[in-house]
Amino acid sequence: MIVYITGGARSGKSRFAEAWAAKQSAPVTYLATAQAFDDEMRERIERHRTDRPAHWPTLEEPLNVPQALAELNGVILLDCLSLWISNLLLADLDDTAILERVDALLAQANSKTLILVSNEVGSGIVPDNALARRYRDLLGWGNQRAAAAASEAYLLVSGLPLRLK
Amino acid sequence: MIVYITGGARSGKSRFAEAWAAKQSAPVTYLATAQAFDDEMRERIERHRTDRPAHWPTLEEPLNVPQALAELNGVILLDCLSLWISNLLLADLDDTAILERVDALLAQANSKTLILVSNEVGSGIVPDNALARRYRDLLGWGNQRAAAAASEAYLLVSGLPLRLK
Amino acid sequence: MIVYITGGARSGKSRFAEAWAAKQSAPVTYLATAQAFDDEMRERIERHRTDRPAHWPTLEEPLNVPQALAELNGVILLDCLSLWISNLLLADLDDTAILERVDALLAQANSKTLILVSNEVGSGIVPDNALARRYRDLLGWGNQRAAAAASEAYLLVSGLPLRLK
Repeated sequence: MIVYITGGARSGKSRFAEAWAAKQSAPVTYLATAQAFDDEMRERIERHRTDRPAHWPTLEEPLNVPQALAELNGVILLDCLSLWISNLLLADLDDTAILERVDALLAQANSKTLILVSNEVGSGIVPDNALARRYRDLLGWGNQRAAAAASEAYLLVSGLPLRLK
Repeated sequence: MIVYITGGARSGKSRFAEAWAAKQSAPVTYLATAQAFDDEMRERIERHRTDRPAHWPTLEEPLNVPQALAELNGVILLDCLSLWISNLLLADLDDTAILERVDALLAQANSKTLILVSNEVGSGIVPDNALARRYRDLLGWGNQRAAAAASEAYLLVSGLPLRLK
Repeated sequence: MIVYITGGARSGKSRFAEAWAAKQSAPVTYLATAQAFDDEMRERIERHRTDRPAHWPTLEEPLNVPQALAELNGVILLDCLSLWISNLLLADLDDTAILERVDALLAQANSKTLILVSNEVGSGIVPDNALARRYRDLLGWGNQRAAAAASEAYLLVSGLPLRLK
């Protein structure tokens, strides 16, 4: 099953996802898509790390996420779809290839519990930058596919969940 | 009656609006406000066109939307309020004139079913650009008027609807 | 008690907050955090002023908001948390000091009715600007604390409230 959790930046998505995961009886694996390119990103990753239970094993996989998921069982907290899609875009995959990978990820989730954290990036002014526009289109489509495949879906606002599904 | 549908970019607004329209017994007219200024816009328009039923007649009207609506009957899917307001802004109308046109549009909807698609653009960082700030103010006011006049209102998030009204 | 009201720009937050305040039997004080640096801001402040009941006393305090609140009783409409946090950031306080002030404000609210208006700024594309990223992080954390402390919480969308809590 898939639990889909979205929201803006600093809306409490990761904390909500971690609380959801912590309530399950199966062991939890944290599947991280972030790459520490610079100090700001390193700090964000470190903050996330200290926020979650120390006994959860962490697997870092920026690109081949469906393959990584295939080898995991139990509860997997994937944080986050939005960074993964950004990584694939920066790795020069085209839109069709990226969305096929999203579908491959979702198809993997049948026999496990996949908690999927994503991001809302499409509710501001249209960006000047063509790559940013392409990213928000792609992420929007990816989010729609993930939410459609999910059994439960939540929008986080100021730390509070709105149930979407 | 008015059905108001809003959400961020690629949140599934048009698809939800089309599904809503397709369930009505009256014939559906698609009233498009987009103008194909460049290849990216042409591609977006084309994608929307292939997504909707081929037998719905399409009327393209970037500016005089209340007049266009006056001549239509049955179910009209207007996609979208946000582009129309952008077109009026770029046509150099002032704020008062633009909001008067929005009111004129809403007043037309009494004897028909108007499905009104709009966009959320006000949940990002305040834009540097003064025209972008003016646009998000105007669209916010227009959206409030449309939602107030609507019998049903929905926020789309990752393809899933949250009922506002 | 705290009533927390958030939403994007021009989503009807202030109007909803004013209507909520107007229904209370206790007298209402308007606590404004805006500073009129330029004509655009002066115009926004003036528009808010003409929108609310003329008999509500207004206190303007851009920085020392917890101290201002300490001296007030009854119903206090604080508009808005987002501008206050922006003012503190521009006054060169560090993140820890800013969030401590937010906590000090929330701790003040026990014996009064504090209506707290804030803003969603984290649902657009990640800003290029490091200060804007720091601001949206800080406001996100501040919003989470305020919403957690609130008895009632609302997200405004196109003038319509979604109850969060």
